[in-house]
Parts: sequence; C-alpha cells; structure tokens
Amino acid sequence: MSRWRPDARQRLERAAIELFAQQGFAATTVPQITSRAGLTTRTFFRHFADKREVLFGGDEAPGLAARLIADAPAHLDPMTLIVDGLRTVAETRFEGRREEFRERRAIIRSDERLRERDLRKRSALCEAIREGLISRGVGTATAALVAEISVTVLNVALDEWLDRDGDRTLFEIILDTLASLQTAVASFPAGPSVRGHDNAPPGRAPGA
Amino acid sequence: MSRWRPDARQRLERAAIELFAQQGFAATTVPQITSRAGLTTRTFFRHFADKREVLFGGDEAPGLAARLIADAPAHLDPMTLIVDGLRTVAETRFEGRREEFRERRAIIRSDERLRERDLRKRSALCEAIREGLISRGVGTATAALVAEISVTVLNVALDEWLDRDGDRTLFEIILDTLASLQTAVASFPAGPSVRGHDNAPPGRAPGA
Repeated sequence: MSRWRPDARQRLERAAIELFAQQGFAATTVPQITSRAGLTTRTFFRHFADKREVLFGGDEAPGLAARLIADAPAHLDPMTLIVDGLRTVAETRFEGRREEFRERRAIIRSDERLRERDLRKRSALCEAIREGLISRGVGTATAALVAEISVTVLNVALDEWLDRDGDRTLFEIILDTLASLQTAVASFPAGPSVRGHDNAPPGRAPGA
Repeated sequence: MSRWRPDARQRLERAAIELFAQQGFAATTVPQITSRAGLTTRTFFRHFADKREVLFGGDEAPGLAARLIADAPAHLDPMTLIVDGLRTVAETRFEGRREEFRERRAIIRSDERLRERDLRKRSALCEAIREGLISRGVGTATAALVAEISVTVLNVALDEWLDRDGDRTLFEIILDTLASLQTAVASFPAGPSVRGHDNAPPGRAPGA
C-alpha cells in the first residue's frame, strides 16, 4: 500500500537528502534511499531517472512552470503572472521544508558536477518560462528577460531564505527581492555617470 | 616578431572560429588554428588553456569585470557602474565583430558540452560581479541581483544584436533591454491579480 501513497516523491526526496547529508552523495545508493523511505526501487524510478535527479526535483520544474503559464488568465501581464507562479512554487514546494532545502543546497555546492547540473536545470526552467510567455504573445526579448528575472528572483530569494532563520516566508522574501530589483533598475539612468552619456555622439541613449 | 603583436589573442580567436565553422569544433586542432593565425602553439597556450577556451574568451571576462568594478569611482551606484561596464565591454569586445560572434554562438549551440561550459562561464562572471559589488559595500542580496541582471541584460541584448542586421549598436540594444527590464518590473505590483493578494489570507495563493 504505502508505495502508492501520494507523498511518495516527497518521502523519497527526504530520505535521499538525509542520506546524502549523512554519508555523502557518492556513497548513497538508490536501494538505501528506497529502504529508508519504505518504498520500492520501482517506485523510485517512476519519479526519478537517477539519484542525482532527486536533488533537482526530477525535471518537474520546467513542466510545472509551463503549465502554470499556460493555465493563467489571458489578461495577466507577464510579471504578474510570474509573481503568481512564484507564489505557488514557494508555497507548495518550499515552505515548511527549509532545513531539507538547506541540506540540498549544501550537497549541490559540495560537488562540481552537481553544480553544473544545477545550472542546466536553471537554464531549462528559464527556457520553459520563455517559451510559455512567447506562446502567450509576449515579445521575444521581453519573454527572455522576464524568464531570466523569474529564475534570478527565485534563486536570490531562496538563498536569503535558506541563510536566515526568521519568520519571513519565502514568498515575502520573493516580494522583497522584487522590490529590490525595482529599486536597482529604477536607479538607472539617473546616476551621475550615465547623465554624462548625454554628451556622447548620437546612437547613445539619452539621459532618460 | 608577429607572435608578439598585441592582437595575437584576437587573431587566434578569429582563426579558431573560422575553422570551427568550416570543419567543425571536434575536427579542429590547435596547430591548425595557430598555423592559420600565423602564430606558434606556445603563443596559443599563453592565451588559452585549450581550443574550447577560445570560444569563451579564455576566462578573461570574470577578471575584467572584477577590475572594472574595483576601478570605478566610489560614488557610482551599482546599476550605473554596471551600465558603464556593459558599455565598455560592448564597445571594446563585441562591436565590429558581429559576424564572428554569430559563428561563435552557432558553434556553442551545436554542442551540449559547449553549452554547459557557456553556462559555467556565465555563472563565473556573475560571481565575479557579485563579489566585486560586495567589496564595494553593496548588500549581499542587492549584489546578487545586480550581478544576475548584468549578465542577463548582456546575454539578452547580445542575442538581439546577433539576430539582427540593423545599425543599432550593441550598447544601444543593451540600453533598450534595460528599459524593457524597467518596464517589466515596474508593472508589478500594479497588476490586477497582485492587487488581489492584499486581500488574501497570509500564506496562501489568491484566486489565481
């Protein structure tokens, strides 16, 4: 019975992270993970291609992002859509699991190949968001930018959330991060150096 | 004499890109590259660890970014500093070499390992900018955000520049991209859905 429980994926993730943290990523086997989770290896491989994928959500993030974007009401502008999506992800995937994601981050940082895989996953997520936005009629450059912003804001906020112990939720930190982003990009082009660009030859942006 | 000419690096880059485009990345050897550039393999290895590095600027980007940030006047705010840096990079590294960078991009896109290397380079550049900003006293979250924005804006603008044939300079496209970024992030939180969040109970998604 237990292997059919709907939380099988999360139990496998927890068991794997605990084992990776205790005995190292390389030394941990799939049977050890399934034994600790009380599930079969068959169940494991229904959810994950290999033990490495447990650390990266088993490729679900790009598909989830694509669905959230496709299902959003047509009138939503891209950034509002993204903020709604980030809220959903923060609340359903991360909230309440801070210690587990801290361990996950430490394991990934400890291994060059895991770091590379992490970069590839971010890139795949970014690409899924970009394509989803283009399918909604967003221009290619804006779609690329908003996709990058989404992934950046999520990752910067995640690091903040994992570095702290306060009561602020991940979604609150995401909103803080977005506000910081607004402040940072709003500061350009009012700075003294860029105003100096006004005197540059044509083809340059004006002070505006 | 010729191998000491200050443009040795650029000549090696051009020769390598031409050969990669003509005969493929895998089939091209370092002696073929140096022969075409009229330089020695010793000169090649003073500039690049291997042929792959020719496609990625031989690790110079993070060091260049670190120097630009460290040398900038103390009063510059982070975004102004970044825009100045992007201008320097656009005008000294990219402008006038569009066809070569088009070929470079096509070669990188054609090979999974080159794409991974590209992601690692972006990550290393981002890290160098982040650390440079933190050394100037910028807060860690803002530094991480501004670093990500810098790399994102450069890459989105580069793709636009490479996809087109118009007269707009890369730096003009960078400024357009920054303006699009400002517009995109300014649209939040004024959107209808996000306004709805004000009425939502803490910690859960609104009607979205």
